[in-house]
Amino acid sequence: MEATKSSDETTIHIPESTSTRGKAAATVPAMVVSTKATQAGGWKRGVAIFDFILRLCAIAAALAATATMGTTDQTLPFFTQFFQFQASYDDLPAFQFFVIANAVASGYLVLSLPFSIVGIVRPHLTGVRLLLIIFDTVMVALITAAAAAAASIVYLAHSGNTNANWNPICQQFGDFCQSVSGAVVASFIAAAIFIFLVMLSAVALKRH
Amino acid sequence: MEATKSSDETTIHIPESTSTRGKAAATVPAMVVSTKATQAGGWKRGVAIFDFILRLCAIAAALAATATMGTTDQTLPFFTQFFQFQASYDDLPAFQFFVIANAVASGYLVLSLPFSIVGIVRPHLTGVRLLLIIFDTVMVALITAAAAAAASIVYLAHSGNTNANWNPICQQFGDFCQSVSGAVVASFIAAAIFIFLVMLSAVALKRH
Repeated sequence: MEATKSSDETTIHIPESTSTRGKAAATVPAMVVSTKATQAGGWKRGVAIFDFILRLCAIAAALAATATMGTTDQTLPFFTQFFQFQASYDDLPAFQFFVIANAVASGYLVLSLPFSIVGIVRPHLTGVRLLLIIFDTVMVALITAAAAAAASIVYLAHSGNTNANWNPICQQFGDFCQSVSGAVVASFIAAAIFIFLVMLSAVALKRH
Repeated sequence: MEATKSSDETTIHIPESTSTRGKAAATVPAMVVSTKATQAGGWKRGVAIFDFILRLCAIAAALAATATMGTTDQTLPFFTQFFQFQASYDDLPAFQFFVIANAVASGYLVLSLPFSIVGIVRPHLTGVRLLLIIFDTVMVALITAAAAAAASIVYLAHSGNTNANWNPICQQFGDFCQSVSGAVVASFIAAAIFIFLVMLSAVALKRH
C-alpha cells in the first residue's frame, strides 16, 4: 500500500495523450518509473528515519548543554567581610548567550520533529526537506557561535592571559569550570550533529 | 545550442523502445520536457551567477577580516623599566584562531570559484552544487566559530568583567580594540553570506 502511494507522488508529467494514443509504449516507461520511485522512496525513507534519530540525539546534547550551563554555580567555602565568592553562568554574557542559544536550538529541534516525521511518512515531499535544511543552517550558525564564544571564555578562565593581565579563575572555581567545559563540549556535539543534518538533507534533496 | 545541451542533461529515462514502438506518443512528452528544462536552466543559471557574485563578496569580507586582524598591533608610547606595552593579535589564542579560520575560508572561497563557474556553464550538474553546499556548511561553522570566539574576547576587552576580576584593556589599547572589532564585524558578514549561499544552493537543488 505504501509503495503505490509513493509512486503516485512522483511528478513526472506524461500527458494523457500518451496513454490513449500508444498504449504499449506508455506502459513500459510507467513501470520503469514506478520501480525507480519505490527504490528511491525506500532510500529516502531510510535517510528520513536517520534524520529523525539524529534530531533526538541533538535534542539530548543541546538540552544537556543548556541544563549543565544553566544550573551550574559554585560558592566558595570562605568569604571576606564584604562579599562571598560565587561563580554563576550569568556573571559572564558569553555564558548567558550560550544558555539562550542552546535553549532556542532545543526548542527548534522539538518543533522540527513533526516535520521530520512527515519526511518519513512522505519521503518525496521536498518542500519539507527544504524548510528543514534552511532552518538547520541557521541553527548551525547559532549553536556554533554560542559554543565558540563560551569556549573562548572557558579557555581564558582555565589558562588566563598574561598580556591582558587576566588571571585564570579556574584555580578558585574548579568545579564551576569543569561543568562549564562539559556544557561547551555537549554544545559542540550538537553543532556537529546539525552540520551532519544539513549535509544529509542536501544529499536527500539532490536525489529527489 | 545551449537549450539542446541542457535538455540532454535532464535524466528522465524513457527507454529506447518507446520511440521505436509509438513514435507519435514519444514526441509529445519529449517536447514538454525540453521546454521545461530550458526554463529551469535559465532560472538555475541566474542562481549560479548570484552564487558567484556572493562568493566574491564573501572573499572580500573574509580577506578584510584576516588582513585587519593579522596586521593590527599597537605599541603604547610609554614603557617601564621592564617591558614595553604592546598589543598584537597573537597575544590571544582566540584571535590567532580567528586569523587562521578566516584565511582558510578565504582560500576555500577562491578554490570554490571554478566550481561556481561550472555551475553557471552547466546549471544542471547537481553534483557540483552538492559538493559546494557540503563544504559551505562546514565553512559556516568554521567562520561563525572564529567570529564568535573573537567577539566574546573583544567584548571582554571592551567592558571587562568585575566578577572574574578581568579589567578592560581597551582603555589603554583603544586603536587595537577598534580595528579588532572591525575585523569581527567583517567576519560576521562573511558568515552571513555563507549561510545565504547554503540556502541558495538548497533551493537550487530542490528544483533540479
